[in-house]
Amino acid sequence: MTIETLSTNRSFGGTQGVYAHDSAETGVRMTFSVFVPDHAPGAKLPVIWYLSGLTCTHANVTEKGEFRRACAELGLIFVAPDTSPRGEDVPDDPAGAYDFGLGAGFYVDATQPPFAEHYHMRSYIEHELPELVAGNFPVDMARQGIMGHSMGGHGALTISLRNPGRFRSTSAFAPIVAPSQVPWGHKALDGYLGTDQAAWQEYDACALIDGGARLPDLLVDQGDADNFLTEQLKTHLLEEACTRAGQKATIRMQPGYDHSYYFISTFMAEHLAWHADRLK
Amino acid sequence: MTIETLSTNRSFGGTQGVYAHDSAETGVRMTFSVFVPDHAPGAKLPVIWYLSGLTCTHANVTEKGEFRRACAELGLIFVAPDTSPRGEDVPDDPAGAYDFGLGAGFYVDATQPPFAEHYHMRSYIEHELPELVAGNFPVDMARQGIMGHSMGGHGALTISLRNPGRFRSTSAFAPIVAPSQVPWGHKALDGYLGTDQAAWQEYDACALIDGGARLPDLLVDQGDADNFLTEQLKTHLLEEACTRAGQKATIRMQPGYDHSYYFISTFMAEHLAWHADRLK
Repeated sequence: MTIETLSTNRSFGGTQGVYAHDSAETGVRMTFSVFVPDHAPGAKLPVIWYLSGLTCTHANVTEKGEFRRACAELGLIFVAPDTSPRGEDVPDDPAGAYDFGLGAGFYVDATQPPFAEHYHMRSYIEHELPELVAGNFPVDMARQGIMGHSMGGHGALTISLRNPGRFRSTSAFAPIVAPSQVPWGHKALDGYLGTDQAAWQEYDACALIDGGARLPDLLVDQGDADNFLTEQLKTHLLEEACTRAGQKATIRMQPGYDHSYYFISTFMAEHLAWHADRLK
Repeated sequence: MTIETLSTNRSFGGTQGVYAHDSAETGVRMTFSVFVPDHAPGAKLPVIWYLSGLTCTHANVTEKGEFRRACAELGLIFVAPDTSPRGEDVPDDPAGAYDFGLGAGFYVDATQPPFAEHYHMRSYIEHELPELVAGNFPVDMARQGIMGHSMGGHGALTISLRNPGRFRSTSAFAPIVAPSQVPWGHKALDGYLGTDQAAWQEYDACALIDGGARLPDLLVDQGDADNFLTEQLKTHLLEEACTRAGQKATIRMQPGYDHSYYFISTFMAEHLAWHADRLK
């Protein structure tokens, strides 16, 4: 597996790179970014996977996430994948909506035509990209953390819950916690997986927790001025699922904060320190 | 003078706002951003003016500058203006080049047609915007610092040198230090001010220092992998002018860094701490 280097920039005493590769899972060329702090020759560093939200590419968090200072201080590698396959051959939402299709892969392996051919973001994030990163960057794959925002918070939670033991730390900003119960999730899971809701359960963090999946711990920050809180995010459903299950979790409402990178960047360093504590 | 609030976002325990107003100086509607950290009722905070480089608006540093954490910790208000007048009536570079016209006001008051009507960025930054900000935000105008990047570094240096005593602190990232001696500056000063180079001198930091203008101190960071260093920035000319004049200055070459916000963001917090020390 070879990767193409699209750009590298020195930043915070490390290297911020953007890379592309031909993905077997999605059948198209995929782009991702990796920040590697300076480190001793031969050293392997813990790695944080950051999954982005609707409409995003790797670029949003790479430019606006303010993660590099903390990653450099804590010695963390930070990987930011894209949120869907892209390209002329990749089917999009028929109406061109922002919440399905391009930029909205929802971290599922689609089973429904015409999406089943390219929309394999679950397998891409769970298998193909980790292999690629492990083969090309100085990552210690025994020390992985995962985090995400909104749709990417959904991705981080569900991928971590389905892969017990792989991620020592899991956190999210404003995650979709129960896609089976909200409009964004209904549209996406219906479109990618079909109407049989039994197939949706492994892509629903609250359903996975209710079904017995567990994490060592969980950190979630949610802004109480987030326009999507009431209809799409419903953070209280995650709080209730964790309480029912005895799942250890810190779920914080942050007064005045919205759904933007102005919110994410504010709490990014704190999340990374929390991950680093668990990745020592 | 009234301002329109285009957006506000809570961030790092403060408010990041974007505002617009009808500018008498430029004759068009101008946009700028202001970050105000939380503060005691009635308190007035020191203010940092950040002038951006070629092609930028207020948005580049606002999204990618990573200044809010430091401003919140240090209690600094951060103002980011646009880099030129804009609008259908505003003349641009005839060839649409990036280095003249829209996004490239060079912080001068143009005297040449057709630019003289709208391109008054010197007076806008020196007079109109400070009055507007002083009237609408909790700034202590006795404690001002100024900084900028590239063309904005040129702006910060020349505005501070021409207004002794107004700015207690002046710093720059990769500034244009001697526009009279480089292609970017020749094109801009010729186009805005005409071919008589005597009129250029008050817009040339090295010429101002050679002419006797002084600052209390100066901090400059410059990446040694900056593509523009050799032809356009020529940092050594500023070092030489400061040495000739006995001007106190810290001018640092940063190995491996380029001209981008990956560079600026790396050293932003350090610059802001340096300003804060001088604004106490």
